[in-house]
Amino acid sequence: MASTEIEQLIQLLAKLPGLGPRSARRAALHLINRREGLLQPLARALAVAGENIRVCGRCGNVDTSDPCAVCADDRRDGTLICVVEQVADLWALERTHAFKGLYHVLGGTLSALDGVGPEDLRIAALIDRARAPEVSEVILALGATVDGQTTAHYVTEQLADCAVAITRLAHGVPVGGELDYLDDGTLTAALKARRSV
Amino acid sequence: MASTEIEQLIQLLAKLPGLGPRSARRAALHLINRREGLLQPLARALAVAGENIRVCGRCGNVDTSDPCAVCADDRRDGTLICVVEQVADLWALERTHAFKGLYHVLGGTLSALDGVGPEDLRIAALIDRARAPEVSEVILALGATVDGQTTAHYVTEQLADCAVAITRLAHGVPVGGELDYLDDGTLTAALKARRSV
Repeated sequence: MASTEIEQLIQLLAKLPGLGPRSARRAALHLINRREGLLQPLARALAVAGENIRVCGRCGNVDTSDPCAVCADDRRDGTLICVVEQVADLWALERTHAFKGLYHVLGGTLSALDGVGPEDLRIAALIDRARAPEVSEVILALGATVDGQTTAHYVTEQLADCAVAITRLAHGVPVGGELDYLDDGTLTAALKARRSV
Repeated sequence: MASTEIEQLIQLLAKLPGLGPRSARRAALHLINRREGLLQPLARALAVAGENIRVCGRCGNVDTSDPCAVCADDRRDGTLICVVEQVADLWALERTHAFKGLYHVLGGTLSALDGVGPEDLRIAALIDRARAPEVSEVILALGATVDGQTTAHYVTEQLADCAVAITRLAHGVPVGGELDYLDDGTLTAALKARRSV
């Protein structure tokens, strides 16, 4: 029988996405067996993160500084704002090294089902930023889901009187994807958006 | 781009079993978004575990006390020793509330492939415990794998001159299991060990 301390550790680990009660027990034992190598460094890393991480007041990214490293970086192109749903999407785009503009994290998508309205997202702050004279383009990098597209539609409407170009990510065949396994919607989109070689 | 502190947290989380690089990022964001509710409690629980958890010198269980709560419990039946591979197996058996004896954690199985010999496991300590006059039965609750059975065979040989009964877990149809989905080995074992109704 695990002691109260271990039981509590397991219960907290089980709250992480991707871990259930069984894998949380396995993770707890893994940590206990690697006290110096993993458990104590993780405890320290969490304590440091808990103390130092803030939400960027400008774009909504999380970082140890506010404004975040992206917003504070002079080499980034301030004319472009890429709108994403979550911080995880921002990180995914940063990993590609393909975008050198700034970001704006909405914090989710509009969802009538979950009761998420425009005031629950950082949409007003986005409109404010888009009104700045230096901004020329807002890229909507929202998910190709119903909620994502609803949100993109709403944001587009709100940006109508800002003097910015509004674009969205291309739909198409994923790199490395086989046509046979693609859904009809993606195939149709890829066909419609075909380009000359 | 995640800051150094966040990057380090992600790398440590990715070392947990069941989490890869992608799910570790998701877990890190989940923690950052729930600072008071999850991140800080988890940091504290890990710090407490790191300071207080010891390996029981008698049975090899992990607990905040040595001897562990099982070994220290007077109501447990000291005539029975249940031999398991890992602490996780001990916890699994404890969850059943079906066993009221003591345990002995070997710390793994013999494995020529992984270079695990008898001296790497807590086998000598088991023989010592089995020599005690009050012990009457050693139950080998090892996995029904090749390594588990090799280890069971070796332990049985080593226990030959101790005055104890040596038993092993029953093989058979898992409760709730459908015959159609069972492997031949289990079905054969279940048939051989059939009992009158």
